[in-house]
Formats: sequence, structure tokens, C-alpha cells
Amino acid sequence: MVQNKAFIYKSIPVGWPVAGKDLTIEDIGFDDAAPPPKGGFTTKNFYAAFDPSQRGRMRDPSISSYSAAMQTGKPVTSVHILGRVLKSDRADVKEGALVLVWSWATESFSAVGPSAQVEVIEERPGVPLTAYLGPLGMTGMTAYGSLHEIGEPKKGDTILISAAAGAVGQVVGQIAVREGLHVIGSVGDDAKLDFITKDLGFTSGFNYKKEDLNAALTRLAPNGIDIFYDNVGGDLLDVAITHMNTFGRIVACGSISTYNNKSTSDNYGIKNYGQVVRRRLKWQGFLVLDDNITKWRKERDENISKWIADGSFKSVDHVTDGIDRAVEGFLGMLKGENLGKSLLKIAEPE
Amino acid sequence: MVQNKAFIYKSIPVGWPVAGKDLTIEDIGFDDAAPPPKGGFTTKNFYAAFDPSQRGRMRDPSISSYSAAMQTGKPVTSVHILGRVLKSDRADVKEGALVLVWSWATESFSAVGPSAQVEVIEERPGVPLTAYLGPLGMTGMTAYGSLHEIGEPKKGDTILISAAAGAVGQVVGQIAVREGLHVIGSVGDDAKLDFITKDLGFTSGFNYKKEDLNAALTRLAPNGIDIFYDNVGGDLLDVAITHMNTFGRIVACGSISTYNNKSTSDNYGIKNYGQVVRRRLKWQGFLVLDDNITKWRKERDENISKWIADGSFKSVDHVTDGIDRAVEGFLGMLKGENLGKSLLKIAEPE
Repeated sequence: MVQNKAFIYKSIPVGWPVAGKDLTIEDIGFDDAAPPPKGGFTTKNFYAAFDPSQRGRMRDPSISSYSAAMQTGKPVTSVHILGRVLKSDRADVKEGALVLVWSWATESFSAVGPSAQVEVIEERPGVPLTAYLGPLGMTGMTAYGSLHEIGEPKKGDTILISAAAGAVGQVVGQIAVREGLHVIGSVGDDAKLDFITKDLGFTSGFNYKKEDLNAALTRLAPNGIDIFYDNVGGDLLDVAITHMNTFGRIVACGSISTYNNKSTSDNYGIKNYGQVVRRRLKWQGFLVLDDNITKWRKERDENISKWIADGSFKSVDHVTDGIDRAVEGFLGMLKGENLGKSLLKIAEPE
Repeated sequence: MVQNKAFIYKSIPVGWPVAGKDLTIEDIGFDDAAPPPKGGFTTKNFYAAFDPSQRGRMRDPSISSYSAAMQTGKPVTSVHILGRVLKSDRADVKEGALVLVWSWATESFSAVGPSAQVEVIEERPGVPLTAYLGPLGMTGMTAYGSLHEIGEPKKGDTILISAAAGAVGQVVGQIAVREGLHVIGSVGDDAKLDFITKDLGFTSGFNYKKEDLNAALTRLAPNGIDIFYDNVGGDLLDVAITHMNTFGRIVACGSISTYNNKSTSDNYGIKNYGQVVRRRLKWQGFLVLDDNITKWRKERDENISKWIADGSFKSVDHVTDGIDRAVEGFLGMLKGENLGKSLLKIAEPE
């Protein structure tokens, strides 16, 4: 047996998760002499991805939702774990391979059973390992698939992105820049505004806390909006609808503004929905594992790898170093303090 | 010159149009000895269609919208006029042909210029002439095209239709019944409830003024709703969203509940829009002349003609007899007093 530090989901949080009470770090042990699970494999893990969706899974399991509730007393489920295979009993996963395991425990060593969803990573020159948990992982699949499938971008279109400096927003924005769109980002502080316009190449942006929303869109999108990539909902959504062009597309990726409301009646009510008829809008939701999103995987892999390697696309990460600091990294992500994709470094890759 | 009685738009109404002030009947004369307009034709008219969209065109012309404002002092523009060709200078419109002229003046005789949108009617056995202004006219094109293009109906799906006894709603419902869907209608009085369930064959329905909306949908759609065909918006839309199945479709045809509000701030605010993401809904608007709607025309013509002829589809009209009574028929339509498609009979067809 060796030490196996894990990020543990101890109890269901009420409001913000509390370090040491709801979330802890514990040694759960790993039997390094045991064979791999039948049809599965074992790994040493290097990175885990933090994602806002994890908070939704820390709930009373009797409340159903699109993703399963986590089990208390077990490691926190990460969207992705990136690690190297130690022993394998699975034909398509070789010993020594670098793998991305979806929806897996945040721990130092794993015994991965046969039903896990696994990708064997083909390392590409010029692409950092962390990109496989971001633009080449779920975040990038979300962004690339939905932008193309629902947003139907055409060169010259104007796109508005809410939560533009967030993990998904910054990938959507960079893809849109590459494809010749006029790209406008909405963010909540001036540092993020600098980041999207100066570092990521967005055409423009605004701080929604400082400027009247209607004035900002009138100023930045004088010819109207063709695509609204919406991560937030709320009043920006209501105002944006009145700036959409005929046959515009609203990609409904999230509605963060509603997630922490105690009840639906606290939500901002959208009053301009009549424009969906008049302007012939298409307003559509998706989840990353839907077939119409994952069908874009190969094109996403090729394009984003190429763009990262040639330096025209940035994979911006906020890396929390060491599993002992997992709670801090997780809470920083939930509070929006981390710029870019939030990752946990579990061990130095080898 | 012969007498040519016309339904005249005299002045811009404030609130409900007033008979004799905003709307009148006048003789505008017709020169029956003159040749037809160059590249056009003349007609004797039999029917005109009333439609709620006409009210929106009776506005200050400086307010832009998707359809042009009517001109005061001129005849009221009807969605369709059905008449017979008297003289023609247009190759594809023969003298004696029965024609449907889109967006044309409500008058007894017309001189139709070369730019008018015209359909030459091929009379089909068992199909009454009035059907060409309803299920085989704009109403039917709206219903058939949008239901199939956006609603994507599959046998066994559950569809909810608001304003189900209205001109569009009753056509959508009957198509859905024919195609093997579970069809639920929302209506505002018990006579309409009887009409849709007993006369038109809807699976079920409810009176939204008498029953709690959530209770009604729980009772009538225990397996959820796959398609919501929405003519109304408002609280029913908000509640219906919470009963939609994964990958459900909302066909945004209209939002009558907002049309008479003095400002957008009076509109009911939709709070459950976050379900668009979770349930992966597609919520899409359209207008009847959009290419993706009119591409269904041939299929619509064939199917609905066949269904009317074999007696399995009802073309329900409310006919106001005589152009002298046009104001009464128009106001009855606006107030929802007419059951089925509202038509004006201008002259006995010959």
C-alpha cells in the first residue's frame, strides 16, 4: 500500500462549502501490488479539472438532475483526471499511455474500472498537457461544438459572449476571433476586460457592473448581434434579445445568474421573449455529451491543437499546485477568482 | 365605372378601432372598361381573410415592424383576397382563373399590378373555396410549415397548443392528430374546449381561466411535453417550460398576451428559461414567408387538400356575409368572438 491523498466530499454543503467540514483532504490508500481491475487499468494522476458543475452534484441525492449527485465520504468527482497508466487489463489502453478519464475521483492514484469513459491522449508537439483538460477537454468540446452546431458562425457575424473571461467564454471567443467574427465580451471586472481584449484578441468588451447594458450594446454592436453565447442569463439576456438581428442564434450554455437563487421566483424574468417570433430567433440549449455536440470532436481536436501549436490560441489556466490545496482551488473557481480554466496539479507529470 | 365598395382604413386607432371613425365602408369606384394594369390583371373578389396581424399594421408609419404600416384613406390590407380574373396582361394568370392575391386591398373589384404576389388556385374536388384562405392559405402555411420545420413531430409525441381554437391553433392540432400525436389544447372558454376535443379530435384540453396551469399540465401530460406550439406567451409559456421533455421544441408563433401591453415592462417575465439549457430545448421563431416555412408548401397543399376531401380535416370558418358588415367581422375577430378562421364574403363566387 502507498499513500493516496484524495479530495474528499465529506458532507452536503449549505451555501458555500466549508473547508474541513464539507470538503477535506484524506489518505485513502492505494494497493500498488494489486493487479488492475478486470477490463480496466490503474493510473498515477497529474491533473484534475475544476468545474462549476461540480457544485451542482454536491446535493441531496434524492434531487434528480442531469448529472448524478456525488456520494458523501468519497472523493470529489472531477470532470477530467489526467494521468499515466501503471497497469492495464484493457486492450485499447496500454501501460505507459497518457489518459484522460472523464467524471473520475480527485485522487493521486486510481483503479479505473471497465465502464469508465477514457480518452488516450496523443501528445501533439507544442501543446501543453494542461490543454487536454481545457480547450482540448470538456470545456473546449462545449465551446467548439455548441458554437458551431447552434451558433452557426459565419465570417463577419457579430457575437456577444457573457462571462467572456470564464473557462468556456474565453475558448468561444478565441475560436470566433480565428473564424473572422466581430467578438464582444461581457465581463464583471476591468482586469478581465483587459485580458479578453488585449491578451485574447476580442474585438471589444464591456464591464457589465459599470455600464448600462443597453448603452454598451448600442455602442459596441451598432449593426446588431447575430450570435449571443449565453453563460449567464438574467438582465443581459433580456437586453441582448432586443439587439439580436433577424435569424439570430442564442446558444444557451448556462444561466449562472440563477444558480444561487433559493427559488425560481427569485430569478430575473425575461420580458422580451416576444422578439423570438418577430426576429425569428433560435434559442437552444445543449449539454456537452449530446451527440450533436460531440460530433464536432475531431474537427475541434485538429483545429484547436493547430492553433495552440502555432501560438494563435491561448490555453489560459489557473493551476492550484498540490492536492493539499484542492479546497482553496475549488472555492476560488466557484467564486470566480480564477482567471481561465481552473486546474489542480496533483503531481509533476512524468 | 361601376360601384366598388371597399373596407377603408380611415385613421389610426387608439385602442380598439372605432366603426365609422377609424374604419368605414366607401365606394371607391372601378373602371370596368379600362384595360388591365401593364403586366397585371383585374379581378372580381369573393372573399377576404381577416387576421390579427392587420391590427399591427394600423399604426404610425414611423414605427417600423416586420410588416409595413397601412396607409390611412386606403382600403384595409387583407392577408388574402380570393377572386376571379376579369382581364389579364400577365402570362401566368389567365382570364377566368381563380386567384389568391396576398396582402391586397379589401374591395369588391381590384386592379392588381405586376409586383403582387399571386397564386392561381387549382380547384380540387371536395375542397370548399374558403379553405384556400385558411388551411390552404397563410394560416395553413404558418401551421404546417412551422410545426414540421421547428416542431419536428414524431408519432407518439405529446404536443401542447395555446390558443388552440384559434385560426392557426386548430390547424396545427388537426395536423398533429392526423400524424398520431397526443394533442393537448389550451383555450379560454368551455365552448372552445368542446369544439377542439369533440369536433376536431384533440386528445384533451383545458380552460386556462378555470384550472391551475401546472395542475392542468400535470394531469394531461403526465409523460411531459415534446412540442409546445405557442401562440400566446405569458404564464402558460413559463409553466409549460417546466413540463418540457429533454430535447423538446418550442414553436414560437406568437405572443398574443403581450400585444396589447402599453410597454414591455408590463409583460409577464419568463423565469424558467434556465430549463432551455438543462432540458436542451430548442425555442425558435419564424414568419410565414421565411424560406424554411414556405418550402413545405407542396406537401401542405397535397396533404391538407386530401384530408379535407376525405372528411378527416375540418376547415372551420366564421364568415361575415357582405362587405357592408366588414367592420363588425374584423372587430369580432380581434376580440376572439369568432370560432375558426374569420372571413369576409364580398360576393357570391361565380
